[in-house]
Amino acid sequence: MAIRFAHRMEGIKASEIRELLKLTTRPEIISFAGGLPAPELFPVEEMKKVTLKVLEEGGQQALQYSTTEGFTPLREKIAARMAKLGIQAKADDILITNGSQQGLDFSGKIFLNPGDVVICESPSYLGAINAFKAYECEFVEVPTDDHGMIMEELERILEATPKARMIYVIPDFQNPTGRTWPVDRRKRLVELAVKYDLPVVEDNPYGELRFEGEIPPSIKSFDTDGRVIFLGTYSKTFCPGLRIGWVCASEEILTKYILVKQGADLQSSTISQRELNEFLELYNLDEHVEKIKDTYRRRRDLMLQTMKEAFPPEFKYTYPEGGLFTWVTMPKHLNARDLMVKALEKNVAFVPGGSFFPNGGHENTCRINYSNMPEDKIVEGIKRLGQVFTEALK
Amino acid sequence: MAIRFAHRMEGIKASEIRELLKLTTRPEIISFAGGLPAPELFPVEEMKKVTLKVLEEGGQQALQYSTTEGFTPLREKIAARMAKLGIQAKADDILITNGSQQGLDFSGKIFLNPGDVVICESPSYLGAINAFKAYECEFVEVPTDDHGMIMEELERILEATPKARMIYVIPDFQNPTGRTWPVDRRKRLVELAVKYDLPVVEDNPYGELRFEGEIPPSIKSFDTDGRVIFLGTYSKTFCPGLRIGWVCASEEILTKYILVKQGADLQSSTISQRELNEFLELYNLDEHVEKIKDTYRRRRDLMLQTMKEAFPPEFKYTYPEGGLFTWVTMPKHLNARDLMVKALEKNVAFVPGGSFFPNGGHENTCRINYSNMPEDKIVEGIKRLGQVFTEALK
Repeated sequence: MAIRFAHRMEGIKASEIRELLKLTTRPEIISFAGGLPAPELFPVEEMKKVTLKVLEEGGQQALQYSTTEGFTPLREKIAARMAKLGIQAKADDILITNGSQQGLDFSGKIFLNPGDVVICESPSYLGAINAFKAYECEFVEVPTDDHGMIMEELERILEATPKARMIYVIPDFQNPTGRTWPVDRRKRLVELAVKYDLPVVEDNPYGELRFEGEIPPSIKSFDTDGRVIFLGTYSKTFCPGLRIGWVCASEEILTKYILVKQGADLQSSTISQRELNEFLELYNLDEHVEKIKDTYRRRRDLMLQTMKEAFPPEFKYTYPEGGLFTWVTMPKHLNARDLMVKALEKNVAFVPGGSFFPNGGHENTCRINYSNMPEDKIVEGIKRLGQVFTEALK
Repeated sequence: MAIRFAHRMEGIKASEIRELLKLTTRPEIISFAGGLPAPELFPVEEMKKVTLKVLEEGGQQALQYSTTEGFTPLREKIAARMAKLGIQAKADDILITNGSQQGLDFSGKIFLNPGDVVICESPSYLGAINAFKAYECEFVEVPTDDHGMIMEELERILEATPKARMIYVIPDFQNPTGRTWPVDRRKRLVELAVKYDLPVVEDNPYGELRFEGEIPPSIKSFDTDGRVIFLGTYSKTFCPGLRIGWVCASEEILTKYILVKQGADLQSSTISQRELNEFLELYNLDEHVEKIKDTYRRRRDLMLQTMKEAFPPEFKYTYPEGGLFTWVTMPKHLNARDLMVKALEKNVAFVPGGSFFPNGGHENTCRINYSNMPEDKIVEGIKRLGQVFTEALK
């Protein structure tokens, strides 16, 4: 048998992170590899109450098929909550998806023909790169600094890239770098998107998890003509196991996402949507988010403090004001994939940074997560990493 | 703004059924349009117990990210249950999807380049047609009779269609016709797939809902070299609101589905998978399926009896031995879309059959569902349809 697969399958590879996560489920591993929320903060007791209520008050509807767009009361709440990011939305602007990963896949499906170019930050989110690759696109990476994508570089690249078809960015506590864009760059991005007539996919899974300062207005809040597609998720502010995310876009564009959702899986889980909606009715999500932020802030502080003490000074790392990740840049001659093997020998895991660059290179980088491990393990794990890194410099 | 969408978006249209379902949520409508299970049979009380148990015994894991492949204990149970269909499978052969619709979308993504041909039954499932169209394929429809796809016609078509890349079939109580293939056609299909070296996607959402006689072996049970992909779902035997389906395929092929699932939405809902698994631990799904079958059998009998009395003799319909649908063929000069408008005036809904033919035509057909409406409404609705049909012949 020589079953022929579609061309696109040549570009689709296993996510290094997902494969790594399988290795790191052993209990002795101190894992900074995943982007997992802290499970001890999940509202388990509240979920029991909420589920019983949903099943008692409308069990049959909760277990039945429902509309592709999603449960309207939940869409209303999502739309209202987006005011925090400076976005005035209504239920009709929202499509419920299975986490924001599904919004990424749909974005590729809706906008990309083979050979089209996605403009993204350098580095960018691995899961998005993999999702887009299924549509046989190319990537042009825009250089970044400590404040995200550099707008002069973006303009230069847009001018030189007639095949650009989509701009993809994560402006808040970016995965993998933890960096956040200032307001002027957000505004400028929209101006450039208008000038070059491109859609912008703004991926914002972490924006609400800000440990200090004010939440900046989203890029979509500067959208003047409905070209910015906002992807949100409850995976980080509530829990990922329910798989509830959303797309917020203008009518012309959202219609396409809804059509694609119909073909892709008809609808997201009816009961999960109703459970989340009931949670938002009965409990205060803001209070829950405060608890998450307190925990993650403490873990970030502890991790960065320990890095300061344990990492050789040649290793640089970002200072994230929120989110889940810090990003380490090693001396150029080191390869993070090799060091990961050494770290795993000491039962510590992280993600080598090379995979976050769609066009390769930058093997002297890695992503380190601080949200998932308890504090004693953060200290112990970073110390062990310090030993591996110190050893590597000898 | 003139945002450019990908070419594939030109072929993606709203599912007529999904749009119809929106119209038919008014309580006064007697709807034979959807493919909805009977909600009064959903195990609501059992779901309460099951959910509490899952959250009490492992709430944190149930709300966390998990593997793309799915929850292993559930995969084991699915694999074991496939013995009913003559398939010897193990957990590693199973990928959990969001209903079988997601398996359809992935099949298109994995096998189809633009211009490739899907070989399907005439008519075929609308949701599959729409899912595949997103990959810019063409369709060649194979003529059918009361026993499904005609193998001589299939062979003739395969010989004449070098661009054929996938065979898609629903051999058990087909959506939309309710027809079932005999064993010899199933075997022959595999022989022809081997001869022309094509993958076969066997879609089987209804097979377990057999009201009389024995469940025939699946097409996959005759698979000799791992070219048959089996798509299953709990939407009809349990409930659709959880969105749990699966793909069963050989290792080489399943690996591709897992990769595509990673990019598409990372994983299916952790908690839904654990809830279903717990239900299967605590309760007897076979007993539950018996209840469903008893109800649907009664409804089918009542519907067909009422059709016999109320429909003009020029209207023919299939006798389904299981599943959810019967298929009506009207005199050639009638158009079911026009008659649907008349029926809606009498608050009765069905799905015109034309949409189930990817290359058009056959507007004198319609699909009628008997699983969702209570018995008094079945009688009343079919009588009203009888009036509409009788009127149309005048």
